[in-house]
Amino acid sequence: MNSYQDRILYSSLRDKVISAEQAALFFKDNTIVGCSGFTKAGDSKAVLSALAQRALTDPLQITLITGASLGHNTDGNLAASNVLKRRMPFQVDPVLRKKVNNGEVLFIDQHLSETVEQLRSKLYDTLDIAVIECALIKEDGSIVPTTSVGNSATFATLANKIILEINLSIPVTVEGIHDIFDTGDFPRKIIPIMAADSRIGTASIPIDPAKVVGVVITHTQDSPAEIAPPDAQTLAIAGHLLDFFEHEVKVGRLKKSLLPLQAGIGKVANAVLGGFVEGDFHDLTMYSEVLQDSTFDLLDSGKMTFASGSSITVSDAYYKKIWAEFDRYKSKILLRPQDLSNAAGVIRRLGVIAINTALECDMYGNVNSTHVAGTNMMNGIGGSGDFARNAYLSIFVTPSVAKNNTISRIVPMVSHVDHTEHDVDIIVTENGLADLRGLAPRERAKLMISKCVHADYKDALADYYQRAVKRGGHTPHLLEEAFSWYTSLQQTGSMKPAEVFA
Amino acid sequence: MNSYQDRILYSSLRDKVISAEQAALFFKDNTIVGCSGFTKAGDSKAVLSALAQRALTDPLQITLITGASLGHNTDGNLAASNVLKRRMPFQVDPVLRKKVNNGEVLFIDQHLSETVEQLRSKLYDTLDIAVIECALIKEDGSIVPTTSVGNSATFATLANKIILEINLSIPVTVEGIHDIFDTGDFPRKIIPIMAADSRIGTASIPIDPAKVVGVVITHTQDSPAEIAPPDAQTLAIAGHLLDFFEHEVKVGRLKKSLLPLQAGIGKVANAVLGGFVEGDFHDLTMYSEVLQDSTFDLLDSGKMTFASGSSITVSDAYYKKIWAEFDRYKSKILLRPQDLSNAAGVIRRLGVIAINTALECDMYGNVNSTHVAGTNMMNGIGGSGDFARNAYLSIFVTPSVAKNNTISRIVPMVSHVDHTEHDVDIIVTENGLADLRGLAPRERAKLMISKCVHADYKDALADYYQRAVKRGGHTPHLLEEAFSWYTSLQQTGSMKPAEVFA
Ligand SMILES: CC(C)(COP(=O)(O)OP(=O)(O)OC[C@H]1O[C@@H](n2cnc3c(N)ncnc32)[C@H](O)[C@@H]1OP(=O)(O)O)[C@@H](O)C(=O)NCCC(=O)NCCS
Ligand SMILES: CC(C)(COP(=O)(O)OP(=O)(O)OC[C@H]1O[C@@H](n2cnc3c(N)ncnc32)[C@H](O)[C@@H]1OP(=O)(O)O)[C@@H](O)C(=O)NCCC(=O)NCCS
Repeated sequence: MNSYQDRILYSSLRDKVISAEQAALFFKDNTIVGCSGFTKAGDSKAVLSALAQRALTDPLQITLITGASLGHNTDGNLAASNVLKRRMPFQVDPVLRKKVNNGEVLFIDQHLSETVEQLRSKLYDTLDIAVIECALIKEDGSIVPTTSVGNSATFATLANKIILEINLSIPVTVEGIHDIFDTGDFPRKIIPIMAADSRIGTASIPIDPAKVVGVVITHTQDSPAEIAPPDAQTLAIAGHLLDFFEHEVKVGRLKKSLLPLQAGIGKVANAVLGGFVEGDFHDLTMYSEVLQDSTFDLLDSGKMTFASGSSITVSDAYYKKIWAEFDRYKSKILLRPQDLSNAAGVIRRLGVIAINTALECDMYGNVNSTHVAGTNMMNGIGGSGDFARNAYLSIFVTPSVAKNNTISRIVPMVSHVDHTEHDVDIIVTENGLADLRGLAPRERAKLMISKCVHADYKDALADYYQRAVKRGGHTPHLLEEAFSWYTSLQQTGSMKPAEVFA
Repeated sequence: MNSYQDRILYSSLRDKVISAEQAALFFKDNTIVGCSGFTKAGDSKAVLSALAQRALTDPLQITLITGASLGHNTDGNLAASNVLKRRMPFQVDPVLRKKVNNGEVLFIDQHLSETVEQLRSKLYDTLDIAVIECALIKEDGSIVPTTSVGNSATFATLANKIILEINLSIPVTVEGIHDIFDTGDFPRKIIPIMAADSRIGTASIPIDPAKVVGVVITHTQDSPAEIAPPDAQTLAIAGHLLDFFEHEVKVGRLKKSLLPLQAGIGKVANAVLGGFVEGDFHDLTMYSEVLQDSTFDLLDSGKMTFASGSSITVSDAYYKKIWAEFDRYKSKILLRPQDLSNAAGVIRRLGVIAINTALECDMYGNVNSTHVAGTNMMNGIGGSGDFARNAYLSIFVTPSVAKNNTISRIVPMVSHVDHTEHDVDIIVTENGLADLRGLAPRERAKLMISKCVHADYKDALADYYQRAVKRGGHTPHLLEEAFSWYTSLQQTGSMKPAEVFA
């Protein structure tokens, strides 16, 4: 198909083709907007960008709800134009982050599976506009999404007006990799997913064509994932984790096919998944949010048979390769709405092995994924909680230190809790792996001190723990001192013991 | 049926009848034991008690896993006899609590739905012995439980040896109120519960009779629930909550049948449920853990049509009444394994309204259910997290103060987090109700300060918040001062502002 008309098979919508600038005029002050986009994939490239531009001279503010993060600095541009009043459920943009942290943008940090729940519960006023990137409008008016599904199916159902962005850079052969299923009202439908490759729904998102107010044509590719190559630290973390999986196979708790894998994006997850390419495991599957470079390496290696997610977020080179050789991958991947990729009941049913990155952990196994020093938002909880709570194994990885060793990422008490000790099974740093399953808090602390904390902070953490134990309690702490490492960092530029106990 | 023989219909097990003292001899040092019992209901009355007695002169230590809490001071007696090495997943006993907090007993505080997951994952060594109270051993060897199901079905499947306690005080007509369903190995079976009254399994627990090493006869009733009558404070909390439900009906978010209710035990929950007896709601259902006095009032009033739980835990008067008029209740209640009563996927599918009690909350909506001053274990998280995470509405109730107003239960930052802000929708104290849904942290704090905190602490909390906002951040905090209210309490005997800002 060469022209965009060939991609609008519901013919009356051909008359609705408009420019992004025209589309941007549908937005009014206080409009509530749902947009496609999940981890930079399948986001609105034209309309939100035009909106940011328009707002420079014609100020307005909206509530923007997406799947997850957007690419192309769109969040930053919108924030810079002062368009964002409220933003949910996730973001990763440095400009927006700054506005969130100084209180200019109200950010609602949500479990990615729950945005749909809140939308359906009519908590927010009417969803005014949905903006959804697609590859094709079919004869029946339904749309074939591109590289992500996110919350688009729900946005399409609930919105009063729909703006479609047809992205000509995505081949129409993408049709077939999406699995759209609406669980409906209470009691919601059973989600009959029994394995990563269970297809339960339709290949396109149903749309009421009467709601479509504009079709915008783009040919901009997704922003590429930027993944730092593995280094000694990430390889060490991956090594500990692979050793652990081998051990679990040896003692009979796991098979060589393990259980469906979920991995957050980032260099550690990439190194772990990379390790599987070499390793002795086989018939692996993925039940995750994001299909990333390493997912495709694993499919190529034959070690992984199938990968289910809500988006494809890859580097430039992989993006090219995937579309060039799409036939090879098509039968091995599925993209689902994020309320299904992240569904609590499915994650527990399948026994997912979840691997996510922590900003910091404490010695009792509580994890902070979001707040620097308990106050400043980094990105958001994303899907980490959806997976960690119900996974068969809930694993958090993190380098033991940050910022040139001035920050220990293993602390006495985390400054913000996203994942409680009840939901964290295993913590891995470059120093070692702490298997916290079935352990009481005092046992957990000893293991974290012996396995995970960096040498520069080991004595200080042990000292805190021992003095806390003297005071007693199920989870011993010295509340007046629990956050002293942060105070020290602020005052001296380092959490290092010399400063802590000066 | 008058004699215990009539309750052992699998005839070869009649030869296995032994005394509790004999049964206690099966336990060895380091034995891992799974026992029936959930919120004091359907617990082992004879064997564990005989074990505590035996250990006074013949020391040994075990790992004890139950459904939830036990009655009859059993946990206390076992702790006093030094029998408990490890204990999970929940307890409420003052003697045991003390030993947990001084480090003598290793307590593993778990989501009640997850104990079964960990047992099946072969994380713990072999489950050596299961002790299960039942009303009847059927012709096929299966057993009819009594007033709770808890984890008994899984214990029966996994244990090497089984000891049955036939409780003659429970009428055999109890048969029919249990719904036993084993979700099996990964991928686990779909749990096809679509409403509180969905019956999906069998009425008895399958048992391999060859594993039964002893049958012990008892006639001791369950320990009664002790529920303080409603007072001005709990009635005020219930009033705010009922007003809220009426409002939600008015704006069209809920129907007059609401959605299935879950309520923790305790006087606040009782007052709320009591309020429904008078109120304008109808066709209510309950999808909860514990069926309590107020559940039966609601069934009697005709306002509630069905109640599903994992146990019946009622006061003495209600216990008598229920058995006397059991025919009336039998078709309106079901008891399920706690991995089903608390199943994440089912709770989300049904859209449960979860009402649990907080030990303390912070101004951003994080909830502490377990740790006094961040260190000392109270009871455990129980099922509160199972429900709060996946509920349609996750509500936490708490009086605004404790200990003669010297403690504020609304604080700047909770000293331990069991439920993160992502999982908490609504907080209610006697002062008011804060609907935190869809709000950013700064909005949440303002609402908590205006609606929930006690007058004695309002200015201090507002002052903390305002000074924190000056420093900035998505979730403004002054880490060096976040826990100063606890320090003040410890030093002066009160959290009160005068002391805080001395
Ligand atoms: C936690 C998370 C931010 C880590 O991401 P990452 O890219 O691996 O993070 P890094 O280790 O590179 O750290 C990011 C930055 O924070 C800094 N940092 C890390 N830990 C820190 C800490 N405890 N205190 C202060 N700063 C810290 C790092 O130094 C780095 O800053 P720099 O780039 O200026 O050096 C990220 O995984 C996340 O947002 N997680 C939540 C969402 C999620 O888990 N989703 C899962 C499904 S995708
Ligand atoms: C949180 C929980 C302990 C509250 O129980 P409750 O019986 O309503 O508690 P109360 O308000 O009566 O408080 C219990 C005691 O703790 C004290 N207390 C309450 N809040 C306190 C605080 N923030 N700091 C210190 N002590 C506190 C009270 O003063 C009281 O002590 P007292 O009896 O010596 O006066 C209880 O609901 C629980 O264990 N929850 C977790 C499990 C759960 O939610 N299960 C849900 C399904 S059943």
